[in-house]
Amino acid sequence: MIRRGFQVAARLGHHRAPLGAPGILPRVAPASAFGSSTDSLVSRFCPEKTDLKDYALPNATWCPDMLSLYHEFLEKTKSGGWIKLPSFKSNRDHIQGLKLPSGLVATSDKSDWRIFTRCIQVEGQGYEYVIFFQPSKKKSICLFQPGPYLEGAPGFAHGGSLAAMMDETFSKTAYLAGEGLFTLSLNIRFKNLIPVGSLAVLNVEVEKIEDQKLYMSCITQSRDQQTVYAKSSGVFLQLQLEEESSQ
Amino acid sequence: MIRRGFQVAARLGHHRAPLGAPGILPRVAPASAFGSSTDSLVSRFCPEKTDLKDYALPNATWCPDMLSLYHEFLEKTKSGGWIKLPSFKSNRDHIQGLKLPSGLVATSDKSDWRIFTRCIQVEGQGYEYVIFFQPSKKKSICLFQPGPYLEGAPGFAHGGSLAAMMDETFSKTAYLAGEGLFTLSLNIRFKNLIPVGSLAVLNVEVEKIEDQKLYMSCITQSRDQQTVYAKSSGVFLQLQLEEESSQ
Repeated sequence: MIRRGFQVAARLGHHRAPLGAPGILPRVAPASAFGSSTDSLVSRFCPEKTDLKDYALPNATWCPDMLSLYHEFLEKTKSGGWIKLPSFKSNRDHIQGLKLPSGLVATSDKSDWRIFTRCIQVEGQGYEYVIFFQPSKKKSICLFQPGPYLEGAPGFAHGGSLAAMMDETFSKTAYLAGEGLFTLSLNIRFKNLIPVGSLAVLNVEVEKIEDQKLYMSCITQSRDQQTVYAKSSGVFLQLQLEEESSQ
Repeated sequence: MIRRGFQVAARLGHHRAPLGAPGILPRVAPASAFGSSTDSLVSRFCPEKTDLKDYALPNATWCPDMLSLYHEFLEKTKSGGWIKLPSFKSNRDHIQGLKLPSGLVATSDKSDWRIFTRCIQVEGQGYEYVIFFQPSKKKSICLFQPGPYLEGAPGFAHGGSLAAMMDETFSKTAYLAGEGLFTLSLNIRFKNLIPVGSLAVLNVEVEKIEDQKLYMSCITQSRDQQTVYAKSSGVFLQLQLEEESSQ
């Protein structure tokens, strides 16, 4: 089945090029990928009650900038314009009751699976981040504080750790904004190094949705917007997660 | 000093555009960045005797493909054409006795610093990888086995984990091939998902060195080359690490 997963995934890749040729994209379920409203996607991904631990909550290691901006956005969630996304240990928790498109069969042994950006569970050492999503504008803000286990050059976050944070923020935004499921491309221009322990703010926008693809942009900067850390773009393929019960 | 670090780094970014305008690149030490031979860079980065733990050695979690390809390349190191790069816990260990270009001052407290791609120390759970470098061709091969803490879609490696592995392999190659120190850009096209626990082989090449920049490419695929996982390119800025004693 994993082999079949490869083949399906391979098709995604091969059929992707050239961009803008929708007829040759992989066929999805007849209900199609694009019928779910953002509201229903959000309510599925952000359960009001759950026993799962939410890692996107403040802890003692958050720097003052991170904490105060978190509270600023939390205020904005009260008027309904913004939503704070929960962040569970694994994407398996986020998609409970759903399964990947046919062929992409996940192994289901008893391993301690973790989503990459929650791979380090010691507070403050690895990824500290929280994503806020604005459904009406299809925009996200990610507050990101890299810890000392994310180092590249001494004292600064590894470029790859920011790349992963971008991919993850794109990914959650792409899903909620339009069932974007797989990263097709990621282009990053690095401008400045992010000091370990400081706050970087990722501003993600969906630029357009066309031919089953979401085109997204991200600018990562300091809170005061005086320092741009990086600019990036990403393209995600829309695919529908199926209900487990429909098997 | 960190503020000054920002400013220097900021200059790197701003002066980068437009590419191909060497006159406005940041000034480096008079000895310039580009005088060190690959041999001297390699011998500095790959100490024959050290008490530091090398994480790029086989362990019981390596899959048979990873282990056998490791031994195949290890054979090639005996004839002198290839070098197995050691992988220490932090880049601070790799650049002992050296310091970053002026202005980029690293904090030096007692934190447990780790290079991002060695952030998870439990064998098999996170990054398992080893890089082999071929000085004469300025090429590298990275054998990469993502563990269950690197998950994105259930059962598959997070795109960001591969992005970081690419950036790290580019980075070590760029330094050894021509004192490439900072990632300026990273462009990735994802083709297939990498199943957790399996081997992905990154083939990195330096395409050209021009205007203080190294232009690099990477293709990531299965061992049998039948499945391409991703293709990428990266641009690195050349800067010289200074001797600590020259301060």
